[in-house]
Amino acid sequence: MHENKSPLVDNLHDRRFTTLLSLQNPHTRSHTGLYLIEGIRHVARAVEHGARIQSVFTDPSRLTNPFGQKLARRLRKSGLPGVRLSPLLYRDLTLAADPQGIGAVVQQQWATLSSLKPARNGLWLGVESIESPGNLGTIIRTAEATGVNGIFMLGSDLDPHDPACVRASMGSLFSQMLMRCTHQEFREWARSGGVVTVASSPTGLVDYKSLRYRWPTVLLVGNEKRGLSEQSLEISDYLVRIPMCGRCDSINVAVATGVLLFEMEYQRRNN
Amino acid sequence: MHENKSPLVDNLHDRRFTTLLSLQNPHTRSHTGLYLIEGIRHVARAVEHGARIQSVFTDPSRLTNPFGQKLARRLRKSGLPGVRLSPLLYRDLTLAADPQGIGAVVQQQWATLSSLKPARNGLWLGVESIESPGNLGTIIRTAEATGVNGIFMLGSDLDPHDPACVRASMGSLFSQMLMRCTHQEFREWARSGGVVTVASSPTGLVDYKSLRYRWPTVLLVGNEKRGLSEQSLEISDYLVRIPMCGRCDSINVAVATGVLLFEMEYQRRNN
Repeated sequence: MHENKSPLVDNLHDRRFTTLLSLQNPHTRSHTGLYLIEGIRHVARAVEHGARIQSVFTDPSRLTNPFGQKLARRLRKSGLPGVRLSPLLYRDLTLAADPQGIGAVVQQQWATLSSLKPARNGLWLGVESIESPGNLGTIIRTAEATGVNGIFMLGSDLDPHDPACVRASMGSLFSQMLMRCTHQEFREWARSGGVVTVASSPTGLVDYKSLRYRWPTVLLVGNEKRGLSEQSLEISDYLVRIPMCGRCDSINVAVATGVLLFEMEYQRRNN
Repeated sequence: MHENKSPLVDNLHDRRFTTLLSLQNPHTRSHTGLYLIEGIRHVARAVEHGARIQSVFTDPSRLTNPFGQKLARRLRKSGLPGVRLSPLLYRDLTLAADPQGIGAVVQQQWATLSSLKPARNGLWLGVESIESPGNLGTIIRTAEATGVNGIFMLGSDLDPHDPACVRASMGSLFSQMLMRCTHQEFREWARSGGVVTVASSPTGLVDYKSLRYRWPTVLLVGNEKRGLSEQSLEISDYLVRIPMCGRCDSINVAVATGVLLFEMEYQRRNN
């Protein structure tokens, strides 16, 4: 069976390793349109959702889980290129506290606004300048759980393929439609499709619970410290706020997004 | 005015510095009952809530914000012991990407169960085995925003004074009543006070929205991967679940806690 094994790479300077490592860099990700995933759950969900996997890397010494081993065999048999990495090199590729011994290079998938038809009863999310990739990944995970139809990345500074974001998304990245666009493009898409834009803001006048989300809706959320930009607030139809107790003026942006999306999804399901 | 300045410490081996640094260690925190906070917002909120500040440390080269400088002067004038640290030493004390030049040593405050009277209409939170200190801090921040009366730390493995937890709590730690207890003690407190225990679980039979939270209620949330222990599920009166779309089986624990607490708080405010 040895002839079926992927080649072993244990040299720090091997091009097959340095190519993988270079995908930790945002510029290389942007330039190549590729990104890294790691862990059995992530790779399995990528396969399940038909993500465009380019190659696979494993560390057989860590890949002790039978389901993970089966997954690795299945991917090898499918003809995907793969390498086996030494434990030290594998370790360098992942942020995980407990690496699972299987990872992959995946092609980024971006949808265009013109391909996106605003469905009746649709729910979308728009994110702007989220600073922590962990927060962005948690938001993408919540978007899947609430049946969001697609996520707009407003502006050019958000990188949903950052390793910490990919990790926090727990595999939800593969099932989501992602669109990168300017505020102007977003505005035109929403207006032309009759989609109502709801912005989350501590200065919002409307309690999020008092609004009836009867129309196709897109929720906009912004930066952890600064909130949404003036530009985003201007293109919004409603500014909603989550009422807070005591002297508390804010909550974590991923928690706020969750509270709002679950309310919108509940109303959609029950109205 | 020089006689009023705190002593400058720039030697890595200075006891005043090593004592501060030792509080990054969970055993030292547990042994001394002290912990570190950093940043203008954190120190200001500690003062505001009457937290027991033991000493202050500053890095004058970073403390450029006028409000922060005023805060440092006010604390020095109040007679609190303080040191000025060299930029390099200060940097070692904080996890912040952008340290603000003022921090403090604060005494932990733990409430006892016997001192905690279950109020009519009360809302509490119980947490068990949360692995990520960032998640725990985000949960504590959400608890303040939803007016939670106090947080039970079930078991001995949770450390709300971990620097990453303190940081994510954004100052909410000082306004919260924290209780450390066993499951048995918690159960007795809830039963004797007529407090209903609601556990969050993906296997829960009750949709969290369908329950009417009419009674004094405590919400229990558990570990990121394993959820709540058998022991916690057994002492719970209701197991509620957050319904999810598609094939999604879970969301981040801090997001789930936020969704549940904001629903409970809303019902409390409107029923």
